[in-house]
Order: sequence, then C-alpha cells, then structure tokens
Amino acid sequence: MVALDFNKLGGLVTAVAQDFRTGEVLMVAFMNREAWEATLATGRATYYSRSRKRLWVKGATSGHIQIVKEILIDCDDDAIVLKIEQIGGGACHTGHRSCFHKRCQNGSVQVVGQPIFDPKEVYKK
Amino acid sequence: MVALDFNKLGGLVTAVAQDFRTGEVLMVAFMNREAWEATLATGRATYYSRSRKRLWVKGATSGHIQIVKEILIDCDDDAIVLKIEQIGGGACHTGHRSCFHKRCQNGSVQVVGQPIFDPKEVYKK
Repeated sequence: MVALDFNKLGGLVTAVAQDFRTGEVLMVAFMNREAWEATLATGRATYYSRSRKRLWVKGATSGHIQIVKEILIDCDDDAIVLKIEQIGGGACHTGHRSCFHKRCQNGSVQVVGQPIFDPKEVYKK
Repeated sequence: MVALDFNKLGGLVTAVAQDFRTGEVLMVAFMNREAWEATLATGRATYYSRSRKRLWVKGATSGHIQIVKEILIDCDDDAIVLKIEQIGGGACHTGHRSCFHKRCQNGSVQVVGQPIFDPKEVYKK
C-alpha cells in the first residue's frame, strides 16, 4: 500500500478531483486512510465526509461516481490529485459541473455557468 | 470583503493553485482569514504555513511568487482555486514545476519529470 502522511491534518489528506480530460478542478475533499485504501482498491474516488463522519463513496447516492484515471501525490505526501472521469457530468451537489462555480472578482462573487442536472431529481432516490 | 467559511477546518480554507494557462495543479495549501485578505489585497498568493504558524507569502524567499489571475470559490465556501501565473516556473520547494510530481500506479510511486530549478541555488539567499 502506498503510504501517505495522515498526521498533518488530523488523520486526513487533501484530495483534489480534476477532470482527466479538461483539467478542470471539480471538487476538493478529504480522505482518511480507509478512504485512500478504498480508492486504490476500487478505482472509484472515495472520500471521508467530515460532516457525516464516515466513508463517502462519491456518487453512491447520485450515481455520479468518479472513475480514477491517474493519481498524483505531492512532495510531502499529504495531498493528492485524482484525475477522474466524472460520471453524470457534474461533481457538485448543486447540479453544477464543478463545485468551484463561483468567481470572485473585484470584491463580489458571481456564479459561473448553469447547473447541468437537477439536484432534486438526482438526490430524490 | 468576500466571506469564506473558515470554521470547518479550524480557521483555514483549502487553496488549490492551478497554472492559469495549462490547468496543471501546482500545489495545495491553506489560508487563514489574514492570508485570504492579503491575497485579495495584493494579487499575490498568500497562504498560512501550518508548520511555521505564520503568514506565508509564496515566493517571498525564492522569488517564485504567484500572480493571481482568477479566484474560484466552491459551493460551500470552504475551498478556493487560484488560477495563477507561477513566476520562476516552479511551485515546489524541490525544484519541480508542481508539488504533484509523484505518480501512484500499480502500488508504487514514481517521480514524474525533472526539477526545473536547483533548490540549493534558489533558497540559499
């Protein structure tokens, strides 16, 4: 098993999910050791939900799983980049393609683009 | 001042620095409120160093500053993406262009690419 440094962030590492085709950053989340091992074992991005305090297989509810194409580890082993294929097109629970859909410019924030799915439909299951 | 949620990570938000031209993820770091406000005020990426417990103007020692071209905020305001111009070409203290220069594949880790500067030269000042 490839070792990461889970000590610097209280048992977690930071994980950046990036579209493997376009390079767009889709979301940032965290993994504990169990989530990291599950990601390696399954090839599906698996995070640790800090709010729910449990393993979070991305897409388990929505069907919008993330297929891991490549994993990059940073210099000090406390952060990773997952290059992923985002099933369903959108990573964000708001229906947007990316969680990073708000642009900060000249002291104000504007939403960029439109949702590509209806969260009410996707999460009603 | 644009408000972020610093509560979920003990006074910090996660910041992803991405090359504004290529989309390559160069590093992940953290900002406290002071670092965020300094980034907005100066247009230079400013982080909070957890190890040194103080503000960290990226490039203050090396000269390899990061000029902020665009700021994206995520859905729940606890993470940002900075699209930056990396002065000096490399963001990593190892001399590599990106901190994410190790590829995890089939249970092993391999360094990708070569350093583009000599850290001994850059950090001797």
